[in-house]
Amino acid sequence: MSAMGEGLTQILIPVAALVGIGFALFQWFLVSRVKVSSNDSSNEYKEKLIEADEEEEGIDNLEVSIKCAEIQHAISVGATSFLFTEYKYLGIFMGVFGAIIFLFLGSVRGFSTKSEPCTYNQGNTCKPALANALFSTIAFLLGALTSVLSGFLGMKIATYANARTTLEARKGVGKAFITAFRSGAVMGFLLAANGLFVLYVSINLFKLYYGDDWEGLYESITGYGLGGSSMALFGRVGGGIYTKAADVGADLVGKVERNIPEDDPRNPAVIADNVGDNVGDIAGMGSDLFGSYAESSCAALFVASISSFGIGHDFTAMSYPLIISSMGIVVCLITTLFATDLFEIKNVSEIEPSLKRQLLISTVLMTAGIAVVSFFALPSEFTLYNFGTEKEVKNWHLFFCVAIGLWAGLVIGYTTEYYTSNAYSPVQDVADSCRTGAATNVIFGLALGYKSVIIPIFAIAIAIYVSFSLAAMYGIAVAALGMLSTIATGLAIDAYGPISDNAGGIAEMAGMSHKIRERTDALDAAGNTTAAIGKGFAIGSAALVSLALFGAYVSRAGIESVDVLTPKVFIGLIVGAMLPYWFSAMTMKSVGSAALKMVEEVRRQFNTIPGLMEGRTKPDYANCVKISTDASLKEMIPPGALVMLTPLIAGTFFGVETLAGVLAGSLVSGVQVAISASNTGGAWDNAKKYIEAGASEHAKSLGPKGSDCHKAAVIGDTIGDPLKDTSGPSLNILIKLMAVESLVFAPFFAAHGGLLFKLL
Amino acid sequence: MSAMGEGLTQILIPVAALVGIGFALFQWFLVSRVKVSSNDSSNEYKEKLIEADEEEEGIDNLEVSIKCAEIQHAISVGATSFLFTEYKYLGIFMGVFGAIIFLFLGSVRGFSTKSEPCTYNQGNTCKPALANALFSTIAFLLGALTSVLSGFLGMKIATYANARTTLEARKGVGKAFITAFRSGAVMGFLLAANGLFVLYVSINLFKLYYGDDWEGLYESITGYGLGGSSMALFGRVGGGIYTKAADVGADLVGKVERNIPEDDPRNPAVIADNVGDNVGDIAGMGSDLFGSYAESSCAALFVASISSFGIGHDFTAMSYPLIISSMGIVVCLITTLFATDLFEIKNVSEIEPSLKRQLLISTVLMTAGIAVVSFFALPSEFTLYNFGTEKEVKNWHLFFCVAIGLWAGLVIGYTTEYYTSNAYSPVQDVADSCRTGAATNVIFGLALGYKSVIIPIFAIAIAIYVSFSLAAMYGIAVAALGMLSTIATGLAIDAYGPISDNAGGIAEMAGMSHKIRERTDALDAAGNTTAAIGKGFAIGSAALVSLALFGAYVSRAGIESVDVLTPKVFIGLIVGAMLPYWFSAMTMKSVGSAALKMVEEVRRQFNTIPGLMEGRTKPDYANCVKISTDASLKEMIPPGALVMLTPLIAGTFFGVETLAGVLAGSLVSGVQVAISASNTGGAWDNAKKYIEAGASEHAKSLGPKGSDCHKAAVIGDTIGDPLKDTSGPSLNILIKLMAVESLVFAPFFAAHGGLLFKLL
Repeated sequence: MSAMGEGLTQILIPVAALVGIGFALFQWFLVSRVKVSSNDSSNEYKEKLIEADEEEEGIDNLEVSIKCAEIQHAISVGATSFLFTEYKYLGIFMGVFGAIIFLFLGSVRGFSTKSEPCTYNQGNTCKPALANALFSTIAFLLGALTSVLSGFLGMKIATYANARTTLEARKGVGKAFITAFRSGAVMGFLLAANGLFVLYVSINLFKLYYGDDWEGLYESITGYGLGGSSMALFGRVGGGIYTKAADVGADLVGKVERNIPEDDPRNPAVIADNVGDNVGDIAGMGSDLFGSYAESSCAALFVASISSFGIGHDFTAMSYPLIISSMGIVVCLITTLFATDLFEIKNVSEIEPSLKRQLLISTVLMTAGIAVVSFFALPSEFTLYNFGTEKEVKNWHLFFCVAIGLWAGLVIGYTTEYYTSNAYSPVQDVADSCRTGAATNVIFGLALGYKSVIIPIFAIAIAIYVSFSLAAMYGIAVAALGMLSTIATGLAIDAYGPISDNAGGIAEMAGMSHKIRERTDALDAAGNTTAAIGKGFAIGSAALVSLALFGAYVSRAGIESVDVLTPKVFIGLIVGAMLPYWFSAMTMKSVGSAALKMVEEVRRQFNTIPGLMEGRTKPDYANCVKISTDASLKEMIPPGALVMLTPLIAGTFFGVETLAGVLAGSLVSGVQVAISASNTGGAWDNAKKYIEAGASEHAKSLGPKGSDCHKAAVIGDTIGDPLKDTSGPSLNILIKLMAVESLVFAPFFAAHGGLLFKLL
Repeated sequence: MSAMGEGLTQILIPVAALVGIGFALFQWFLVSRVKVSSNDSSNEYKEKLIEADEEEEGIDNLEVSIKCAEIQHAISVGATSFLFTEYKYLGIFMGVFGAIIFLFLGSVRGFSTKSEPCTYNQGNTCKPALANALFSTIAFLLGALTSVLSGFLGMKIATYANARTTLEARKGVGKAFITAFRSGAVMGFLLAANGLFVLYVSINLFKLYYGDDWEGLYESITGYGLGGSSMALFGRVGGGIYTKAADVGADLVGKVERNIPEDDPRNPAVIADNVGDNVGDIAGMGSDLFGSYAESSCAALFVASISSFGIGHDFTAMSYPLIISSMGIVVCLITTLFATDLFEIKNVSEIEPSLKRQLLISTVLMTAGIAVVSFFALPSEFTLYNFGTEKEVKNWHLFFCVAIGLWAGLVIGYTTEYYTSNAYSPVQDVADSCRTGAATNVIFGLALGYKSVIIPIFAIAIAIYVSFSLAAMYGIAVAALGMLSTIATGLAIDAYGPISDNAGGIAEMAGMSHKIRERTDALDAAGNTTAAIGKGFAIGSAALVSLALFGAYVSRAGIESVDVLTPKVFIGLIVGAMLPYWFSAMTMKSVGSAALKMVEEVRRQFNTIPGLMEGRTKPDYANCVKISTDASLKEMIPPGALVMLTPLIAGTFFGVETLAGVLAGSLVSGVQVAISASNTGGAWDNAKKYIEAGASEHAKSLGPKGSDCHKAAVIGDTIGDPLKDTSGPSLNILIKLMAVESLVFAPFFAAHGGLLFKLL
């Protein structure tokens, strides 16, 4: 038995979740103390100014502050309206797909309402398949709603924080950094705590019906992961297309043709570009990581339910995955204090180390946290059931599984940083290759992305080998959870990036001084790297989560082995490995087409609106927002359909073995495409920033802005946009989502699948 | 028993090979009738002119012809000297690796000279492992030498034909086409027939020792495939780096910076560029396809040796793979006549259809040929042994296996054509995207490459499923052979491309008229497409060959199943899927670095040699040739080592299961990377040509040469160069070579492998 009793577990988990939510709200309160004035509240603003240090530049410029408020308002309105339109579509999808889940799963036993003997714990009686169908559907809807909520809240705080960061930048880089970082933390903690809380409450409510039927309970709960991930897919893809259509369109005409700076208010696409950062990089990413978190929890819980925990009804041991997440919230809370209170950023050069330190601190603390949890929440020895075999496991085995996932995440994060930060030679080499033009820049950038795959893959492979050897599929599931246990910190530093990017945009649009723009640029450059790190985490954890889900699927579908040398599996494997390419082709083409439309509109406005280029007239921002909105909503459907339908088609027509091959193929191929795409894009972006900043002799020799080298770098940056913000990060959802969908539908495929081969 | 007796088989195979060689020599003779004059043979040239149609333009310009001869000589000398230098390195490699094979395989039974019971046919006694080690080493060296010879002969005929094609272009596009095509046919037939002949002779000689030990015989013969493929690797990589360093370097300074046309004689890198076409696209590709051919034959023979053919000692049935290849030579011979004698090209627009028709004709004829062979050479029913199970197979089952491989090849070829020819919308869309600059061009091009993967992968998957279902691993091996059975035609249309490219280069350098350049450009544009088709075939067949070799490896290493859900296999799978990225990163970076050196040298010459730009002084071509040579020889070592060492390391330290995972992973991932890279590059090249040719209203609106659109297209073309000619086509060698190497070393890994896991 676990050292920690059920009562304590029942208290600790919700308390941790509520502490997380409370901490997030407190951070929000701190951010809200920075006042953004609008016309009607200028008195309050004046009052605020008196408190401020009068030496800081531009601080008494009321006009600037009003402009900031206006811009912030425009961005917020654009983002909100896009998300609401998107949610309308997603609402329809949720209804339809929920019905599909219910019908498919209900049909497994012909909609019978009779109880049946359990699959794993064969002495007991389990609830009917129809009940599982119903509860899976409910869990799906809950997961979807939580995911949507996560994305929406993230977007809200980000659009709330962007102008505040800009205004704080007048006081110094440290203050601006803290504002951006705190806002990121709001999102990180809200999301982690919220996800945990909803999951915890759902389990307890479902348990009222299921009682001792742990198998059925956690089969149904898996729907939560599916809901979270399917919303994440549309969020990432839709948001990704939105943001990059606007970004690429704005850059192509503004920077390349018209030679005006980034975020110049004369550029008609500039508001759409900033809206995009919030709906793509914030809301999309929030949904994505929530999905990973939900799925890894569900995978671990499902696998645990068929271990001796589930069969012996040890509530605390069963809740081990949730307790790990609870500990994660506490650890991240302490970690955040290091960035916001214990250290102070005084210089631009301290930003990146401070963010990197966050990763290291959270990992070290969490390692201790895992040890504590593993000791108190697990029996010292227990049995795992895995593909018909039994495995004796000790509690410190599981400690190592979680810890290796956690540390593999750190390795992936640091590798990503090495390949995408302009402090190191890889990005500097890419920047240097701009001397001979855009072509060599692209060749070097692609090569960099390919190369950056090596270490993460070895890290993932080692984590898989060790955790599987120690605790079979459950080991992999908790390793994934380990990588995601510091998700609150990971999300905080990840969300920090787009907020800083927006802050820079607002500074430029509000016509703030060069000095302030330099500060926000420095925040933004660090943000590019942390964004890449965040993507690294997302994809690394997705690989582990998918493998755990895959294992659970194989177990649930009753497959004995997934032998590559059977043709059914092999054709699945090679077609699965192709899917990331198909998916990337769709999303990149979508960005390209949408960007072309945007370019035409921006050109049209520059050519037909008199006085626009001279800054005498305002462009028609709304039209550009509309183009991005329409394009992204229309274009997210085909790739979404590809991902959602593939498991259904493969399972129904080709059967469970082929589907297993598809999952394995898309996993091992998608990881590579995703990592290389994200890192290539990140490297190009920072190579451009490296030339622009001109911080070293080498960088100066390539610059300044507008030089041939810089133009070549801008081309690379533009190509990288859809790679790093649309196709790359969507791919981890592709692999996770197909796996969780297969898991949810496994009983149906096992019962009725493989129609085509049955016919032949 | 087979309807065809052993005696007839023993006659037909060598006769077909000799007919192929004879036909190649006859084509060479026909090409040689076009006289290229040099200073000392101007009399003969004059004589020739009298015969010619006097109306044709420029035909009486002696100076032009002498120039052509000079340029041809320079290219030929450069190519020969590069290949000889390369062969010196390869000679050392062959010696070292031959020794490794002997030592590793000899150690399997501790260098014992005692005979042992056979593995599959357990009643009989087989030759000792030491003999297999020795004969494998000999077969390896034979394969390596044949591969080198194939590449070298191809290069010789290509450098012999290029100027002849240029001179014939003065008489009309049809004559030029026939010259280029005949020269391609020389290479195609020499290679196919030579490969068959050496293999046939080796088998018969080896049989003198092995007698009835079919297992040992065909185990040893597998070394032939390894030798062929390892030379191909270095040929492709070294040649690929050579050609693209020169091409990219020449284009970046010449076309982009100096605004001089492609192949302008003022460009110092122009000779190196043309040499590169011959050593990379001709010699490299020749070695590559020879490797595929040798491997698929070896895989089929090896698998056949453990079927009832080998056990019942039915020589004709055992030789079925060789008889298929013999039939292929006859079919291709007839097919060639359609292009050279039965139809005549009168118009530029007929070139591409004529080449496409070659594919179709050869496929249709070959289908009939396979039916004949399957009926006469195979018993009507026989037994295959596959992973411990027996399978009853009928002769028409094998007909379907070979035929589906053949037709899958056609589907891949036509799909490739659709995605890379500028006659269709995909390339036209890419060209159109140049309106908004290089960035959108790159985004659309990458998306096109990703998309072009879909149909070939489904074609391969269906071929695998059908052939495996009908005849297990043997079915897949003969399907691969089916795809390669028309290799002579495939190589002819493939080699036609670089010859035309060279012809165009010579026309430009010799200062021939615009009209002639237009003709050679048209030949070249069709050549780009056929080159892409050739690469499609190469990769498609590589996928099937690798799978067959993989199956043979698993069988020989005694693995029972390759279960993805065991951690040993899964880590192999994910690391294997990463290898194509690692490899591509190396090769692309190599091309990038070598191109940078080339750019510096070309710039230096333009800046320091007075009168160069005005055409008054000659550039220093030799220095550029030296840069390409040095770079390619230095840079081919790391990627070569990666490929050659991975199976050895994985097998020795991690064992046969992990290695099986690595093979499967690199196969399913490498195919995608290779196809998308080749097609992206081909599409960019032809998008540029589409704009340059300006043949339609749409194309005209994007041009002319030198417009912003065209500049963007040139950037895409330059990026595509290393993708389509270095990293992409080398990847099929990566997957094949690792598979054949694993097969050869399988007895060693099975006996002594997996050291690391044994220690843990």
